[in-house]
Amino acid sequence: MIIVIGSATPASEVERIIGELSQYSVTIEKSVGKYKTVIGLVGGTSSINPDNIQQISPSIEQVIRVKHPFKRASIDFRHGEPSSVDVSTPLGVVSFGQNHPLVVVAGPCSVENEEMIIETAQVVKASGAQFLRGGAFKPRTSPYAFQGHGESALGLLAKAKEVTGLGIITELMDTSDIDAVAAVADIIQIGARNMQNFSLLKKAGATGKPILLKRGLSATIEEWLMAAEYIMAADNPNVILCERGIRSFDRQYTRNTLDLSVVPVLRTLTHLPIMIDPSHATGYSQYVATMAKASVAVGTDSLMIEVHPNPSVALCDGPQSLTPNDYIELMHEIKSVAQFFGRGQSFTNYIPRVTTLKNRVFA
Amino acid sequence: MIIVIGSATPASEVERIIGELSQYSVTIEKSVGKYKTVIGLVGGTSSINPDNIQQISPSIEQVIRVKHPFKRASIDFRHGEPSSVDVSTPLGVVSFGQNHPLVVVAGPCSVENEEMIIETAQVVKASGAQFLRGGAFKPRTSPYAFQGHGESALGLLAKAKEVTGLGIITELMDTSDIDAVAAVADIIQIGARNMQNFSLLKKAGATGKPILLKRGLSATIEEWLMAAEYIMAADNPNVILCERGIRSFDRQYTRNTLDLSVVPVLRTLTHLPIMIDPSHATGYSQYVATMAKASVAVGTDSLMIEVHPNPSVALCDGPQSLTPNDYIELMHEIKSVAQFFGRGQSFTNYIPRVTTLKNRVFA
Amino acid sequence: MIIVIGSATPASEVERIIGELSQYSVTIEKSVGKYKTVIGLVGGTSSINPDNIQQISPSIEQVIRVKHPFKRASIDFRHGEPSSVDVSTPLGVVSFGQNHPLVVVAGPCSVENEEMIIETAQVVKASGAQFLRGGAFKPRTSPYAFQGHGESALGLLAKAKEVTGLGIITELMDTSDIDAVAAVADIIQIGARNMQNFSLLKKAGATGKPILLKRGLSATIEEWLMAAEYIMAADNPNVILCERGIRSFDRQYTRNTLDLSVVPVLRTLTHLPIMIDPSHATGYSQYVATMAKASVAVGTDSLMIEVHPNPSVALCDGPQSLTPNDYIELMHEIKSVAQFFGRGQSFTNYIPRVTTLKNRVFA
Amino acid sequence: MIIVIGSATPASEVERIIGELSQYSVTIEKSVGKYKTVIGLVGGTSSINPDNIQQISPSIEQVIRVKHPFKRASIDFRHGEPSSVDVSTPLGVVSFGQNHPLVVVAGPCSVENEEMIIETAQVVKASGAQFLRGGAFKPRTSPYAFQGHGESALGLLAKAKEVTGLGIITELMDTSDIDAVAAVADIIQIGARNMQNFSLLKKAGATGKPILLKRGLSATIEEWLMAAEYIMAADNPNVILCERGIRSFDRQYTRNTLDLSVVPVLRTLTHLPIMIDPSHATGYSQYVATMAKASVAVGTDSLMIEVHPNPSVALCDGPQSLTPNDYIELMHEIKSVAQFFGRGQSFTNYIPRVTTLKNRVFA
Repeated sequence: MIIVIGSATPASEVERIIGELSQYSVTIEKSVGKYKTVIGLVGGTSSINPDNIQQISPSIEQVIRVKHPFKRASIDFRHGEPSSVDVSTPLGVVSFGQNHPLVVVAGPCSVENEEMIIETAQVVKASGAQFLRGGAFKPRTSPYAFQGHGESALGLLAKAKEVTGLGIITELMDTSDIDAVAAVADIIQIGARNMQNFSLLKKAGATGKPILLKRGLSATIEEWLMAAEYIMAADNPNVILCERGIRSFDRQYTRNTLDLSVVPVLRTLTHLPIMIDPSHATGYSQYVATMAKASVAVGTDSLMIEVHPNPSVALCDGPQSLTPNDYIELMHEIKSVAQFFGRGQSFTNYIPRVTTLKNRVFA
Repeated sequence: MIIVIGSATPASEVERIIGELSQYSVTIEKSVGKYKTVIGLVGGTSSINPDNIQQISPSIEQVIRVKHPFKRASIDFRHGEPSSVDVSTPLGVVSFGQNHPLVVVAGPCSVENEEMIIETAQVVKASGAQFLRGGAFKPRTSPYAFQGHGESALGLLAKAKEVTGLGIITELMDTSDIDAVAAVADIIQIGARNMQNFSLLKKAGATGKPILLKRGLSATIEEWLMAAEYIMAADNPNVILCERGIRSFDRQYTRNTLDLSVVPVLRTLTHLPIMIDPSHATGYSQYVATMAKASVAVGTDSLMIEVHPNPSVALCDGPQSLTPNDYIELMHEIKSVAQFFGRGQSFTNYIPRVTTLKNRVFA
Repeated sequence: MIIVIGSATPASEVERIIGELSQYSVTIEKSVGKYKTVIGLVGGTSSINPDNIQQISPSIEQVIRVKHPFKRASIDFRHGEPSSVDVSTPLGVVSFGQNHPLVVVAGPCSVENEEMIIETAQVVKASGAQFLRGGAFKPRTSPYAFQGHGESALGLLAKAKEVTGLGIITELMDTSDIDAVAAVADIIQIGARNMQNFSLLKKAGATGKPILLKRGLSATIEEWLMAAEYIMAADNPNVILCERGIRSFDRQYTRNTLDLSVVPVLRTLTHLPIMIDPSHATGYSQYVATMAKASVAVGTDSLMIEVHPNPSVALCDGPQSLTPNDYIELMHEIKSVAQFFGRGQSFTNYIPRVTTLKNRVFA
Repeated sequence: MIIVIGSATPASEVERIIGELSQYSVTIEKSVGKYKTVIGLVGGTSSINPDNIQQISPSIEQVIRVKHPFKRASIDFRHGEPSSVDVSTPLGVVSFGQNHPLVVVAGPCSVENEEMIIETAQVVKASGAQFLRGGAFKPRTSPYAFQGHGESALGLLAKAKEVTGLGIITELMDTSDIDAVAAVADIIQIGARNMQNFSLLKKAGATGKPILLKRGLSATIEEWLMAAEYIMAADNPNVILCERGIRSFDRQYTRNTLDLSVVPVLRTLTHLPIMIDPSHATGYSQYVATMAKASVAVGTDSLMIEVHPNPSVALCDGPQSLTPNDYIELMHEIKSVAQFFGRGQSFTNYIPRVTTLKNRVFA
């Protein structure tokens, strides 16, 4: 249930209203928007009569029942105003959201060794990324495949952060690793295969850290938002939704099917920021640039791009990783596309010219 | 099997080579590209030794086996050069293809009456469409739903063409209507539900008319290209592939899932031009504009947009139809997006300002 | 809208009721069941007030609106009583339906030549089939693949019928072949790829011949029943629904996914008889026997089994075809399974012992 | 890599062979079958020359490379012999596997209170179940839905086990609950949503307890077997695979699509025992009985059936739960079907007549 309060209402009256609401056994969340203040009630609201709420104060403009099963994630919960997830990094606060420039996250599938992660971090920073991604714990289909270097890789991510100032995004797979991951990650990633690992969602949510929630391989939009709701129900409003391709009947030429229309649809359902990962979605580096540009065209708030110094010898996901030079070339294009679609200006960093790097040892 | 002939080869030598090839029981197709001439052999090529072909002439640069099951539709069949489907309309020849500006097709789901189809045709022409779409025969899930006005609607399409000069695209559902449809249509549409109606493909192909081949609801990319191959095997090279959304596990918020990565994938497989239909793909008018812009961003050669003077009373597909004013607004945006992505300049027509139309009776 | 008339009502009163109903612009269909007579009204029934119908006669027990979009196919349309599709064959009338023994249809994918089709017909008849299936016109993904022998194959099917007395089931792909196919087929098959070829459904329906309607590769149950409704709306009540596997995300080990729960679901929705085709569903002969037995366990009214004298050289679908010996072995099992589940007694024919055939030249 | 050793080989020679193999850096697993002894090598086998292995002893009959990515789960790993998962319960050892009678697991979605779980346990035991299922921790789409009673419910399951002697199957969702769950469960269930929660698989596997591995909602067969391989790679051979329906494009009439052909397919790929859960697969109690019978017809080794004393007030999954009387009726049928298909004789318990229970308060 949402209570919309008029813009001119004094703070003391808002507090008085909240005080009155404490008689109901519900969780109360205040959200101060640009024009309105919205008070959300979550829990046993079905027995509450909206008319009784209305009578608490003449400053209450509207009392609305949220019709969707997701509440805190619902666009109604913020009365239509998009939310912003603000993340502190050594280089400053980076904000994800519709009213902010496009944010770029880049890096390898997994942290392989110190040299490669530092080098990749430097390249992606130089080309305009705000975050470094890199897996310490890797969900792999086979138990015999490389599972990530685990805690030692977390240490290398911390070093890359120290050297470059980039924020760090890395995946949490097991609730028992939560402290180690939270110590290094500026944003904790929940992978597609764990999107309905509800224990993980609750505990990751409880850290208070920003959470990147990847859509499950065949999760409906509603199930995805309900997974976000698990995190938000743990009092953590900082959720970023990441589309990374869904499973369809045709997997001959792409690994997954990138569902781009999810962006305009989500805008009608939720206030949460959106990221697109064209690398996992297509599974082949040759399609990443085109789909990254299309992602900006549909209005994504953020991009996640896989980059590896030498994709042909990558320990995982090589085929979908861009080389540093391909990445730099893409960032030049993305910069221009983001500006065209009104989401530019975040690329204040210098993007090196590809030729500058031609002599380097990347590939 | 593909025979690539050097650029400096005299026409007489090419003819001599073709003459020599007539000893094999194969179909021979010559395709003169910008730099090379390519001779395609289709049929029982498995028993032909490429070395024997090579020895026919020193002008033969390469003899290549097409590895895909689709041959004429294969990118190899034109040695990597995109094809162009050139369609005569009263206003001039319109070309679909990667080296041409974006082509826009617009109009209602079905031809309802003379006034509505003429009016819609005028609006979409004024805003930059080159083709009018409109159904005379409608494939409907229910036998009790409106099935289209049939032959009389074909007459109205002819009239709209006469009045506006727009080319006409309309669907063929039954081989017995082929003459009537071919008499009016500049491009014959094969609908998604008939994509593997092989009798229809063969006979539509045999008309020689350009064919718009919609992707089946759950057709793989390979099945789609094989359906194109049916048309091309009937000696009709003029096929345009239309992505209109595929069926996935989640249909709560969109009618289908628009598979945009199909565009970069098709570019690696086929030389045929591509159209995107965001109206059928999403099923809701509110998502059409965003997905149309994304379609241009991925490099589509053409867009199909549903427009109806008054969507709320449309006899079919009202929810996904744009009003004329929304369409005009979209065309202003698309013009700019197409220019940005290097596919502009076809919008030579005047796109009226929305305000001009505000007083009209459309909605 | 359904009008249920009491069991003791004289025929003259039923006729009088029908006469009264003629004032409404609807199609009227009378169906005399075991206990009740049901009059179905199809068409513009939304404006009819059920109370007015009720007042026509005290013999009217109930007036019910059919809630599903499919009307004639609906279980309500026969007030819960299963229908029976009775097909005349030279050996007598064979009935498909819940109150009848299991019917078996067997034969090759395509009619290859006279010897093979006659021989296969004799084998499957000897082992308990009532119908011979065999394709004259074959829907193939590739235009370069064998397309069936066409009209000459129809002649061979006629001959096989003459020699064995089996009924014939063969596929119709093009409305222009309708007379030729209807002249030979006792049941006309509409293939999965043509399930929503509405022109074909209407014209095939209009022949009055029993129609075997295969479920489309990704047709929902409702779309399938609506396709049946197209046939029934052409005044042809003789529709058999054939489940042949649906398309899913996993096609590594089976060609399609056999959706067996469709049988109990259909029993709650429709009165039409059901056939299961485990050959196309699984795509591999090694899985056919198990899934055929499961099909009987869920209560199918009929089975379609692909049999070829020598699957390894079959012109199509060899991998999913049983050898004659495997087929005979399966029929021994099916006979016993059908008896166990109360659907036996149709196997009055002699099923030869496998050893008898061991010396023959089949494989 | 598999080493097959002749049947007459003395144990000392087998030990000598294993000793010789210790020079390779692989894991060695011995499996003594009915006729042969098989030694499996897992790990870096790609560099091992099979000829060198062959020369170790003349008792070695065959050296085979396992072609599938799953090794221990592969049918080759046991040279074609099905494995048996033997579970100790207070009533004795119950064996799951192809050479054993059908095992029945029944109970409610969740443990609601002491009375209901004890009563349900008594009913299902009386009707022939060997195991009681019941959720203490429930994976629910919504964070606001009932999440299970947690540890207190584990205590009630322990009590139900004490009272009835039934084995207990309950789900583990979080690695931090592993000791509490393992203390009560005779078989630990990994739910569909956690099928690729690899941390959970490894740690659950490491308990050594039998694991029931539900197939993920859109897991391919290969991914499912790879998930089993994770458990087996933790030195736990006791895995039971449970098919519970997959996600398809049509969810109007069933919750999921029961993929029954998975049974004959799995028989060609793995030696592991199989369970079918028709309750979750169909989602509606009215379809459970038919699909349970079909499951026995395809040869499942086990059935999982949801039963609730009063489904209409169940805290979860009420619509798919059988009443005790419906369950008893089904068990009478299943007993007879299992006997028909050669999987009977486990129903040594008395199955009460439905009438006996008619006066009770269940529904």
